[in-house]
Amino acid sequence: MTDVVIIGVGLIGGSFALAIRKAGFQGTITGVSSAGTIAEAIQHGVIDRGASLEDAVPTADLIYLAQPIGRILHSLSQVDRHAKPGALITDAGSTKQAIVTEARRSVHRARFLGGHPLAGKESRGAAAADADLFRDHPYVLTPADPAQVDGPFLDMLRAIGARPVMMGAAEHDRLVAASSHLPQLASTALAATLGVHFPDAAQVAGPGLLDSTRLALSSYDLWRDIVSTNTVAIEEALSAYIQKLEHIRENLRTRQLQEEFAQGAAFARRLRD
Amino acid sequence: MTDVVIIGVGLIGGSFALAIRKAGFQGTITGVSSAGTIAEAIQHGVIDRGASLEDAVPTADLIYLAQPIGRILHSLSQVDRHAKPGALITDAGSTKQAIVTEARRSVHRARFLGGHPLAGKESRGAAAADADLFRDHPYVLTPADPAQVDGPFLDMLRAIGARPVMMGAAEHDRLVAASSHLPQLASTALAATLGVHFPDAAQVAGPGLLDSTRLALSSYDLWRDIVSTNTVAIEEALSAYIQKLEHIRENLRTRQLQEEFAQGAAFARRLRD
Repeated sequence: MTDVVIIGVGLIGGSFALAIRKAGFQGTITGVSSAGTIAEAIQHGVIDRGASLEDAVPTADLIYLAQPIGRILHSLSQVDRHAKPGALITDAGSTKQAIVTEARRSVHRARFLGGHPLAGKESRGAAAADADLFRDHPYVLTPADPAQVDGPFLDMLRAIGARPVMMGAAEHDRLVAASSHLPQLASTALAATLGVHFPDAAQVAGPGLLDSTRLALSSYDLWRDIVSTNTVAIEEALSAYIQKLEHIRENLRTRQLQEEFAQGAAFARRLRD
Repeated sequence: MTDVVIIGVGLIGGSFALAIRKAGFQGTITGVSSAGTIAEAIQHGVIDRGASLEDAVPTADLIYLAQPIGRILHSLSQVDRHAKPGALITDAGSTKQAIVTEARRSVHRARFLGGHPLAGKESRGAAAADADLFRDHPYVLTPADPAQVDGPFLDMLRAIGARPVMMGAAEHDRLVAASSHLPQLASTALAATLGVHFPDAAQVAGPGLLDSTRLALSSYDLWRDIVSTNTVAIEEALSAYIQKLEHIRENLRTRQLQEEFAQGAAFARRLRD
């Protein structure tokens, strides 16, 4: 693998570029993004050069789509049209069923492997890119057939310190609805509730409230596509959460509350093991 | 002020001791706690000596109650019985109406000033005490009459870097129901929901889920008294939160979701200003 093209050189795409370089990748890394983004990414030493999709893709061994979901859906057929036969197209979109379905329809010359790095931080853009962003975090791959997973790409993920996890696209979307989309909406709802009903609560904010509202800083731009491509699973996760909150509200005076604290603490500890 | 007694030498009591010492307090700091806690606190250099309540309180200028709420309610009359006339009793309990009401009933020889430092961390006990725990965090005082606030104690709080905030006990309890008790129960409910309905979500946990479940690590022991002394305000905050989550669930496909993200982000940013 000597020619990598990254389409969408933001935090994730830029971090992937820095990470593979740090892990010893010797080939060319070309970015495809807006002129301003390319200039910023080159200035920060994230990519070697920028090019148009039409110029960059034909020689690429690996095409890494790190755009918002809606843009990935739109890029797939265009990238496949220019890709050399057998090139690997992969993506970093936060939901997988819509993308995998579209790839099945429109990727023919190249091969496609859906991916989702469970990594991120508050800052956005190539300027915030970080060679260690993926280190020790799960990196989900959703191959149609697990036996088909591309060996060199898997080796690359291990080299950048990520923990590859294989699962189906539907299972992925159901689980991230709970592990990622629900926490985002719970944090947004908490901050919005306080902002509307208890604005003076900011006077008595402790460190716990800062933790609980960190995700609420996220931009809707990133979340619109996630929510629209995983609506049913998110509705289910939200319903389970609302039911749990109602149960807690009804049991503030009973021993049931102790049971909820025990269940919550057990899962929170398990996440940290 | 030359003789300070701290009743309950855990994280908060121990940190108050370290903080005033660091700020230049030259007098004696005596701890009243179980034998094991006193030994640990002396070993970590947190207090000068341990004593029984009956021995420690009569000479004290300041008695700092840093026990769980239920224990504070029980200590007040006992401390007052042994206190020298005009000594200041203050507390660090997380709810204020129940404590202020009990103090009005049972503190006569000494003076009482309710307090609540909005500070904390995951670790507990005197071994985790930290001279900078209160620095840059709000420290609520709930004087019956703001003009009566004890000058030397206020100076002490400023010297340890806390930001004193005056408000009524009822207003305090209403606001911390939103800023502290609701985030705790939201985090506990989130972790319990995932643990029960989506245990496999731990496989795809990212940094956001760790932030969102940090409070869920808290022990029920600390929360039982908080919930039982602020039940109505917590029910109200939970109801507002549940209503917001239902609104979000019903608007996943509409532009209303963008409005919720904007409201949430605005409040989250305000907390960080």
